[in-house]
Amino acid sequence: MKLMLVICDGMADRPSKELNGMTPLEAAEVPNMDKLAKLGQSGLMDVIAPGIVPGSDTAHLALLGFDPRKVYTGRGPFEAAGTGVEVRKGDVAFRCNFATVDENMNVLDRRASRISEGTDQLAQAINGMKIEDIEIIFKEGVDHRAVLVLRGPGLHPDITEVDPHESGKVLESKPNVPEAEKTARILNEFTKRSYDLLKLHPVNIDRQSPLRQPANIVLARGSGSPPNVPSFTEYHNGLNGAAVVGISLVRGLCSLSGLDLIDVPGATGSIDTDINAKVEAAIEALDTYDFVLLHFKAPDLFGHDGDAKGKTQYIQKIDLALEKILHVKNTIICITADHSTPCSVMDHTADPVPVLVYGPGLRHDSIECFNESDAMSGGLGHIKGHELLQMMAGLAGRNPKFGA
Amino acid sequence: MKLMLVICDGMADRPSKELNGMTPLEAAEVPNMDKLAKLGQSGLMDVIAPGIVPGSDTAHLALLGFDPRKVYTGRGPFEAAGTGVEVRKGDVAFRCNFATVDENMNVLDRRASRISEGTDQLAQAINGMKIEDIEIIFKEGVDHRAVLVLRGPGLHPDITEVDPHESGKVLESKPNVPEAEKTARILNEFTKRSYDLLKLHPVNIDRQSPLRQPANIVLARGSGSPPNVPSFTEYHNGLNGAAVVGISLVRGLCSLSGLDLIDVPGATGSIDTDINAKVEAAIEALDTYDFVLLHFKAPDLFGHDGDAKGKTQYIQKIDLALEKILHVKNTIICITADHSTPCSVMDHTADPVPVLVYGPGLRHDSIECFNESDAMSGGLGHIKGHELLQMMAGLAGRNPKFGA
Repeated sequence: MKLMLVICDGMADRPSKELNGMTPLEAAEVPNMDKLAKLGQSGLMDVIAPGIVPGSDTAHLALLGFDPRKVYTGRGPFEAAGTGVEVRKGDVAFRCNFATVDENMNVLDRRASRISEGTDQLAQAINGMKIEDIEIIFKEGVDHRAVLVLRGPGLHPDITEVDPHESGKVLESKPNVPEAEKTARILNEFTKRSYDLLKLHPVNIDRQSPLRQPANIVLARGSGSPPNVPSFTEYHNGLNGAAVVGISLVRGLCSLSGLDLIDVPGATGSIDTDINAKVEAAIEALDTYDFVLLHFKAPDLFGHDGDAKGKTQYIQKIDLALEKILHVKNTIICITADHSTPCSVMDHTADPVPVLVYGPGLRHDSIECFNESDAMSGGLGHIKGHELLQMMAGLAGRNPKFGA
Repeated sequence: MKLMLVICDGMADRPSKELNGMTPLEAAEVPNMDKLAKLGQSGLMDVIAPGIVPGSDTAHLALLGFDPRKVYTGRGPFEAAGTGVEVRKGDVAFRCNFATVDENMNVLDRRASRISEGTDQLAQAINGMKIEDIEIIFKEGVDHRAVLVLRGPGLHPDITEVDPHESGKVLESKPNVPEAEKTARILNEFTKRSYDLLKLHPVNIDRQSPLRQPANIVLARGSGSPPNVPSFTEYHNGLNGAAVVGISLVRGLCSLSGLDLIDVPGATGSIDTDINAKVEAAIEALDTYDFVLLHFKAPDLFGHDGDAKGKTQYIQKIDLALEKILHVKNTIICITADHSTPCSVMDHTADPVPVLVYGPGLRHDSIECFNESDAMSGGLGHIKGHELLQMMAGLAGRNPKFGA
């Protein structure tokens, strides 16, 4: 049997006033998820551990079976890998924003009016320069996002941030440990130079209105060395795998774990993604791969925006597209979330997520609907995120016998 | 949000014949606990691990989030701290009973008729003496209880007990490891000298009746070095905390963990305590502290006495006082026990304890009553004691995101 893991990012939630005390998943009409819940087993999952608030990166590491407390080294390397920039041993990688500052280095807009055009030209102006003996590798991502990789001797990721995260002056990075002194110095110089190179850049010349502010500085954050992620295939007894996922962070994480990335036209990692195309690509990938991860980012975005009704409707859209999955043969199907993003909190929380697992010929419980409340009394009980894939592989008969 | 943890010591139980097969908590009318169960989520908790019979000390360490298998070093240091005696590195601390022996060192009453007056004078006769190069620090506690701290070079806590725990002769302490030879010798000499100093003490002169036996010896037990308890605030991401608790063991444990102790007039750590005053003090403490522990000792005492009906009635008294907690705003409330003390066993057992967690805006399950049976199918499932506070802090939004 093969394995398909459908992750609806941030889908799990808390009771919402706008939804008469239901969660978006409880309020949504999800006949296809319900059907899989009815045919299979449900439960609740602490993605990392009770009370631990998962990031998207640590959560996905856990869902791939790894212990994030052992392999996580910061978000930067995953973003870099997801943007197609190689991260080597000894490198320090960052995720970055193009931002807007005034001449006194006060941040006016952390996202430069969410600039979406011309960032490739801005990146070209920065990429390839050297600061001391350190090579600067810089590449634009989606919208205002970009990645930075520092390459050269004597680097260490344990430094403080330059991004003030709110309005205020750009900060000076400082080393948290003596070995990181050079890295902090290089990052400060990089930040200054990015301003010098971008402030009069042609792309910024006609970006001078409040709605189109100039992308005149790069703010880097999330410094990290290459993560200690084991090979997915070796870790999971020879399973090969692929991922259908739009957002760069999860793409990078899957790629660094050794999953193949399947590019789907129309997949954006956002609300406007082509849900049907992604579902079809994931089903098709089952012909080639033992394991397929299918990821939808949008529920998390609605959670961060506090839009419970929008989240409900989007979950219904996903459910509609998942109808095709009901016809997949000989496959263990799991639907879950990487964490809760309650609309009432507008950020990730530690609330456990509902999970359903279905496979032909496997046991089923008495749960008939897929949501947070029904999952509480499901047959899977409470599981941990890092146990999920191992459990699916076991049910699929893909794990060797331990002992004789 | 803030956190309140209500611990009803030994409240969890087994079915009782006297209560028509119900547990005391099942038999009790507890409308306030039921209301919180209905609004929140219930579950069962293995305070340490399945099958491990918790002591009050190890249980409370777990409930504060620590792993007792790593930080526990014996009960003595907690009792000493709870009685207001400092325990320093290198010290060995004991909890003690004033007891009654005959001239052949046969124990007639391990609690000297539960002596409650004059123990300060008895303690004065003992405190401050020296045995070899070891300083003897001795202080009376509540009723027949006292604490002993040995201070000086070459001490080690790993010795056998002098207290026979049943009637019989006072035992000779022996070292379990060679390094503890001196400590065993000092303790044996201390025991002998306590008899010499107390047998003709004025306080004992008029204690010669079967109902008022003389407190003519000190029996020390629970030897331990200072525990390796981490700082509560550092361990829990900056949460500050306070405890409303009467009995010295739990007071000492809370104090050594860095919780502030709140003294409540009328709080005795026993059956005659002022329950209402404690509840009010705990609620008031939420103005100042992020975390408040509220502890009631009496259910455990009824369990040890095998008094199922008395236990039932006392649980009802606690419930009545907890009505005020229903009006507390913006707080995660947890009600649980530190272990089971079944009336049929008259001692602690490893049976898991029921636990309920309620917080405004959080999910709720379908459980409507708080007790051992209903908790079995609650939405929290089965949790571990050391996960509880972490989980509460996560639900309260007090834990940082792990990752990004």
